[in-house]
Amino acid sequence: MRTNSDEEQCLFSIHQATQVLGGKWSFVVLGQLFCQDSQRFNQLRRNLDNISTKSLTDTLRHLERNGVIHRKVYPTVPVTVEYSLTEKGRDFKNVISEMRIWGQKWGSNM
Amino acid sequence: MRTNSDEEQCLFSIHQATQVLGGKWSFVVLGQLFCQDSQRFNQLRRNLDNISTKSLTDTLRHLERNGVIHRKVYPTVPVTVEYSLTEKGRDFKNVISEMRIWGQKWGSNM
Repeated sequence: MRTNSDEEQCLFSIHQATQVLGGKWSFVVLGQLFCQDSQRFNQLRRNLDNISTKSLTDTLRHLERNGVIHRKVYPTVPVTVEYSLTEKGRDFKNVISEMRIWGQKWGSNM
Repeated sequence: MRTNSDEEQCLFSIHQATQVLGGKWSFVVLGQLFCQDSQRFNQLRRNLDNISTKSLTDTLRHLERNGVIHRKVYPTVPVTVEYSLTEKGRDFKNVISEMRIWGQKWGSNM
């Protein structure tokens, strides 16, 4: 039988996970990086067709600040910036794949 | 080797799942209903201590419109309204439990 503290711990962890992720764009940005790790800003923006530059900038900044993605700057002219998953980010793969399975099953009757 | 269409399908399903879910509050509302199915509005609001009435109302309306939760009205005076998971909602359990596992593992170093 679940005790109250189990329930609190269970909800606390879900709450923490959603804090780290922030908004819904995080899932599709992570989904992109799982399909192809290390992408540049414009590559991500093209692949996420209806995301605004501001939403993508905010989402990437939030995920980087929370240690889910890594931002690498190359000293080209102009500079090149690449985003990739950290270990913490890669560990989110099970959530993303379960979301994909759910989206495939229930997607048609949205 | 993943073909482009696999990738597109994979991202399309994730995108669909995030459309159905809407904002981040959906995860903790669903988390609540997984811990205790059939809850009333104020029960949910108390259990989600820092959610505003508007955010909870919008989240419940969005989840109901997308068939993830069911809203039952009892003819009491005043009326009583209870929210519970639909089959589609219950099927989201794996995503929620993977998020809980991830939150537990990475929660401490947020």
